[in-house]
Amino acid sequence: MDEREALSRIADGLAHAGDDAAVVDGTVITTDMLHDRSDFPAGTTRYTAGWRSVGASLSDVAAMGAEATAAVAVYADAAFDPEALEAFIDGAVDVCEFVGGDYVGGDLDRHSEFTVATTAIGETDDPIRRSGASAGEAVCVTGTVGRSAAAVRLFERAASAGETEDAASDRERANELFRFPPRVEAGRRLRPHATAMMDSSDGLARSLHQLSEASDVGFAIDRSAVPVDPAVESVAVDAEDRWDLAAHFGEDFELVVTVPDEEFAVVNDRSPVPIRRIGSVVPAERGVTADGDPLADRGYTHGRTE
Amino acid sequence: MDEREALSRIADGLAHAGDDAAVVDGTVITTDMLHDRSDFPAGTTRYTAGWRSVGASLSDVAAMGAEATAAVAVYADAAFDPEALEAFIDGAVDVCEFVGGDYVGGDLDRHSEFTVATTAIGETDDPIRRSGASAGEAVCVTGTVGRSAAAVRLFERAASAGETEDAASDRERANELFRFPPRVEAGRRLRPHATAMMDSSDGLARSLHQLSEASDVGFAIDRSAVPVDPAVESVAVDAEDRWDLAAHFGEDFELVVTVPDEEFAVVNDRSPVPIRRIGSVVPAERGVTADGDPLADRGYTHGRTE
Repeated sequence: MDEREALSRIADGLAHAGDDAAVVDGTVITTDMLHDRSDFPAGTTRYTAGWRSVGASLSDVAAMGAEATAAVAVYADAAFDPEALEAFIDGAVDVCEFVGGDYVGGDLDRHSEFTVATTAIGETDDPIRRSGASAGEAVCVTGTVGRSAAAVRLFERAASAGETEDAASDRERANELFRFPPRVEAGRRLRPHATAMMDSSDGLARSLHQLSEASDVGFAIDRSAVPVDPAVESVAVDAEDRWDLAAHFGEDFELVVTVPDEEFAVVNDRSPVPIRRIGSVVPAERGVTADGDPLADRGYTHGRTE
Repeated sequence: MDEREALSRIADGLAHAGDDAAVVDGTVITTDMLHDRSDFPAGTTRYTAGWRSVGASLSDVAAMGAEATAAVAVYADAAFDPEALEAFIDGAVDVCEFVGGDYVGGDLDRHSEFTVATTAIGETDDPIRRSGASAGEAVCVTGTVGRSAAAVRLFERAASAGETEDAASDRERANELFRFPPRVEAGRRLRPHATAMMDSSDGLARSLHQLSEASDVGFAIDRSAVPVDPAVESVAVDAEDRWDLAAHFGEDFELVVTVPDEEFAVVNDRSPVPIRRIGSVVPAERGVTADGDPLADRGYTHGRTE
């Protein structure tokens, strides 16, 4: 039983599951766990860890088209290093400020491995779910994909290089890439137009498959339209690798959204971040394709691509 | 730096910390992490783990005098056992139902050790904080204390006995004791009268010290008035041990609450669970005492008494 099977098993039994966040009386709530072994490569600062882990939950709030109200975190480590803790909190506070929410604290715990559990809440009367897409609409993505994949490559390169100046610079750049901007404002502005939305945390390809399943549609993606992060270019070994990092690696936190085709121009104007039309929603029987070939439902699952 | 120092460090930098839950625009939010090594003794069923871990967050909502709206959990384990997961979810759903809230799912993760992070939210326009107690008031506790301490002793006894019938019966009783009733309804009914409130998760003694610090008062406790759970009697080796389990062990989830002395009779009538007056709020300079002797600020901190 892999994680997705287990998740769908959870979803079967619960009224509100199956989206990026649950909705209860207009409040959206979402929770995530990140930990050392798989989520924070060597070289990740605690400031970046705070930003990124709280940001991951805020991204789920964004994907519902909700305002972000507040976030909390449990911070668990084998020993308490006050400086590391303060850096983590600074990152958590800053990412909440970035989206207009409040970081309101949390809990501390001892754990064999550095582990963070974050929860964010938000408000919306009209949440956007994964299930509303229809054939004929446009499918779009905010910002760029492959950002986290590039960061992980840079962390790896820095780790194998040792304490050189280049390694320090790779590490700094990787931390910057890891501190993604949660798309709360974009989600809010897209909400009046979006028919289905989710974040790309499992990778663009897997997100499309999830939207496809929830909405009972297919997608015809134009590979050349996918906005690959420039950082990917500097780490990809060839074109296939570049596509893999952009479409399958995941752990990016962009919004994947469907909108009526005729509204794309307005959406493009309204979005506070670049938004790209990467293809069309098609009937379910056409499946999920990129440049006409089937796009594998393959993505990132907790620390490894599978 | 121990956990309490670290927590107060967190609190210094954040507007909303220092109570059982944070409050943002009438929504209370609280988060906790529990894990195998310290929180779930051998013999704890996954159903009990689900009830207890979600219940711990609901207890924090109760301590603010709020209605419990919803809870989420991250469930992390080294491998996914579908039966264990379903039992956990059943426990989580049942404890939410018990308090009139919704369990709305969460996330799954892989972790070296069984680890659960839970978050609960609730609503109240008038949260009860730890800081409102005044000398002359009554200090009270709901239900009984020592329940979890007795459970842990029973789990230990069962573990050392092996697979006997007595061990099975100890284990069953321990699981029952571990599935405490979160005092959400009691908290809600106490709210109009309570001047300060928190839950007893760190133990009665430490809770009193925390209320004492937040409200700048002392407490004069009458040991004989403390409602010790009957299960403690069957596991305590002597009177001193009995008091230790009841007052210091902690991990109970009763409400410790201060009310104006003259309102205690009304409070007692209104409370849906037995509530006992265990002493008086006194001026800060008199400190926290039990039968006139200083009551040590000693309790349970993550898996060990210290």
